[in-house]
Amino acid sequence: MPTSSPSPSPTTTFNTPYLRAARRATVKLNDLPPAIDWTLARRTTRMNPSVIREILKITERPGIISLAGGLPSARTFPVSAFAAASAAVLARDGAAALQYAASEGFAPLREAVAAFLPWKVAPEQVLITTGSQQALDLVAKVLIDTDSRVLVETPTYLGALQAFAPMEPRVVSVAGDDQGVLIDDLRARMGTGADKARFLYVLPNFQNPTGRTMSAARRAALVAAAAELRLVLVEDNPYGDLWYDTPPPAPLTAGNPEGCIYIGSFSKVLAPGLRLGYIVAPAAAYPKLLQAKQASDLHSPGYNQRLVAEVIRDGFLERHVPTIRALYKQQCAAMLAALDEQMKGLSVQWNRPDGGMFLWLRLPEGMSAQALLPKAVARNVAFVPGAAFYADNADPRTLRLSFVTSTVEQIATGIAALAGAIRELA
Amino acid sequence: MPTSSPSPSPTTTFNTPYLRAARRATVKLNDLPPAIDWTLARRTTRMNPSVIREILKITERPGIISLAGGLPSARTFPVSAFAAASAAVLARDGAAALQYAASEGFAPLREAVAAFLPWKVAPEQVLITTGSQQALDLVAKVLIDTDSRVLVETPTYLGALQAFAPMEPRVVSVAGDDQGVLIDDLRARMGTGADKARFLYVLPNFQNPTGRTMSAARRAALVAAAAELRLVLVEDNPYGDLWYDTPPPAPLTAGNPEGCIYIGSFSKVLAPGLRLGYIVAPAAAYPKLLQAKQASDLHSPGYNQRLVAEVIRDGFLERHVPTIRALYKQQCAAMLAALDEQMKGLSVQWNRPDGGMFLWLRLPEGMSAQALLPKAVARNVAFVPGAAFYADNADPRTLRLSFVTSTVEQIATGIAALAGAIRELA
Repeated sequence: MPTSSPSPSPTTTFNTPYLRAARRATVKLNDLPPAIDWTLARRTTRMNPSVIREILKITERPGIISLAGGLPSARTFPVSAFAAASAAVLARDGAAALQYAASEGFAPLREAVAAFLPWKVAPEQVLITTGSQQALDLVAKVLIDTDSRVLVETPTYLGALQAFAPMEPRVVSVAGDDQGVLIDDLRARMGTGADKARFLYVLPNFQNPTGRTMSAARRAALVAAAAELRLVLVEDNPYGDLWYDTPPPAPLTAGNPEGCIYIGSFSKVLAPGLRLGYIVAPAAAYPKLLQAKQASDLHSPGYNQRLVAEVIRDGFLERHVPTIRALYKQQCAAMLAALDEQMKGLSVQWNRPDGGMFLWLRLPEGMSAQALLPKAVARNVAFVPGAAFYADNADPRTLRLSFVTSTVEQIATGIAALAGAIRELA
Repeated sequence: MPTSSPSPSPTTTFNTPYLRAARRATVKLNDLPPAIDWTLARRTTRMNPSVIREILKITERPGIISLAGGLPSARTFPVSAFAAASAAVLARDGAAALQYAASEGFAPLREAVAAFLPWKVAPEQVLITTGSQQALDLVAKVLIDTDSRVLVETPTYLGALQAFAPMEPRVVSVAGDDQGVLIDDLRARMGTGADKARFLYVLPNFQNPTGRTMSAARRAALVAAAAELRLVLVEDNPYGDLWYDTPPPAPLTAGNPEGCIYIGSFSKVLAPGLRLGYIVAPAAAYPKLLQAKQASDLHSPGYNQRLVAEVIRDGFLERHVPTIRALYKQQCAAMLAALDEQMKGLSVQWNRPDGGMFLWLRLPEGMSAQALLPKAVARNVAFVPGAAFYADNADPRTLRLSFVTSTVEQIATGIAALAGAIRELA
């Protein structure tokens, strides 16, 4: 029997109100409560606060120009369309919109998703999720055992690493170039037998963090290699509609729907605050993803699903998304122009994205993005050091710049400040 | 290297569209895709479709009176209040409501939760979740390792069993009586050393499925025993506000806030379709619950959180919840009256709830609720067999009746039909 200690172990944050509560509470102990055995699950050692969210706290300081966050431009949110849809949905179907609903999602929204995807998808394959982050959580629950090998790009989306981590995989990076993953390295990292990779997670369009896009040829090679290797692909496509001049090549999933899980999102084409994304999965995986979804949050908010279904019927996205493309193209061009001007003579490299929200910058040899960050913040500009996006062997010289949250004027000022910080550190 | 088969393994549901898609897709394979190795995680063998949701499909048949579902009465949903709040939030803070937001939740909503709970709670302890189902998922992720001992009531909430299952605990039932868990049996089931129970999951008020309420004396004994045993309590309280004549005793958490995780919900006092619940946790558990939340869906929909904060300011719940109580009290009374009348001479037992949405019925010796269900459905009434709510050693004679979804007239008709089915089977 554990001995009870006379007072609780002190905590800095919550101590006082708790002690007061213990005295006030109707249910009373004779003494103050003893320390409790909080044995946390082993997986919690793999959980960490998001580096990005920590940096975002810095960027809330007035006067800071944030090139750090992945927040879509609030100028693109169709507020009045949502106001009209809210009124219409509540007037027409208020009780149903506010009631419990099917775990699969609202049928008209599933039908809309199936209809707008660029390959043949049945509505029964669509699972509506609470943002695409939940899709990653469900994939992790259904496909990852402890120590399972999971392949990712170099670098890869931080939120995916965070979603996979609680299921305790061994995450292995596949090398890439400016067209995407290298097929030879994929073969080398596959693993065999029980250690065979459960899947490759890949974000082919305007990738977060690099902004790069996988070429059509590389997609064909990857789909063929995955089929030959009998490797599942988990394709994440939150940014695919945000192309500037020409649409990206067809999704990988279109080439082998039975071997892929496809993840999409309404966060970048409508608004993230509704938290709606979706999975398209074949019969081999759908039922377990659905059961995992049911256990995770029963269903995504039915009210929100009806709002989105109401907003997007009658071709709204076809009118709205081009305005987002035009804005982001302009902001990307502004950042590229500022980089061309400000980084002269600095041995800094960056790419020229064809869409999306981010570009990827590499500092001169020997310089660390982590060391640069405080210098940049001192000059009122923030970015995300690239190291957060690597599963292993991070390149300390890399950093991610977002060009969609700030204005064109802020981008120019911010890049000038960044160049100043680089010169200071060089 | 695996050999590639010449055609995909046929699936009944999705075969045809996929084959068509494979032919149409821009990215093409030379042959049809070979079978892919879908190695699902071991935990998926613990996932199952919800029995209740399967029964709900039956109840969608026209003419069926459902005493099965746990759906709050749609008559209680404050549709016009949500319409006004939607208009106000989008007009005032549209861009912010539709943007990404903090994982902890919307600050004014966290403050409101802290303020209305009946013990001293700091807003920093409140974590807004996507329904209380997600709270259970987060608790499982943070507190359960494979084969961890987890204690539950006999019977217990099915959704909790489903939320815990993916983390692969050994779930152990603690015996109870009409006042709640039996303290002696709790001691007997605690386990020791590495097998010590990680927590006891308990739903003290108008429990789902039984409708029973833990007495003040039993609460005091449980809090004292848990403190002595240094056992974490996970207290789930979705129905606590739905009392009929007198409020239930204070929450267990009020007696030992450092040793409890408290889970609440807006689903039963406002509407489930917004998917908003909350956790109150001490500093020992909060940071990891927050990190698990972030990895699960980044944050709960900010729009919904602002809607609820808007609706409940100025004391709305104090005016609204009494109308729900009055309605459910009336419906509960109708069911009890119908049972008193219809079950005469049938050796059927049931309890008389003091609040909530459910009551628990026990069939005559030798009779199985599972066998009764088709007979009842043939008479156009549905219920949930009790077996689904037991972690082990289910009592096959038990069943759950909900009195909130149907009208008073439907309840009378439904109970008469149920009595007829029992007579048929007896």
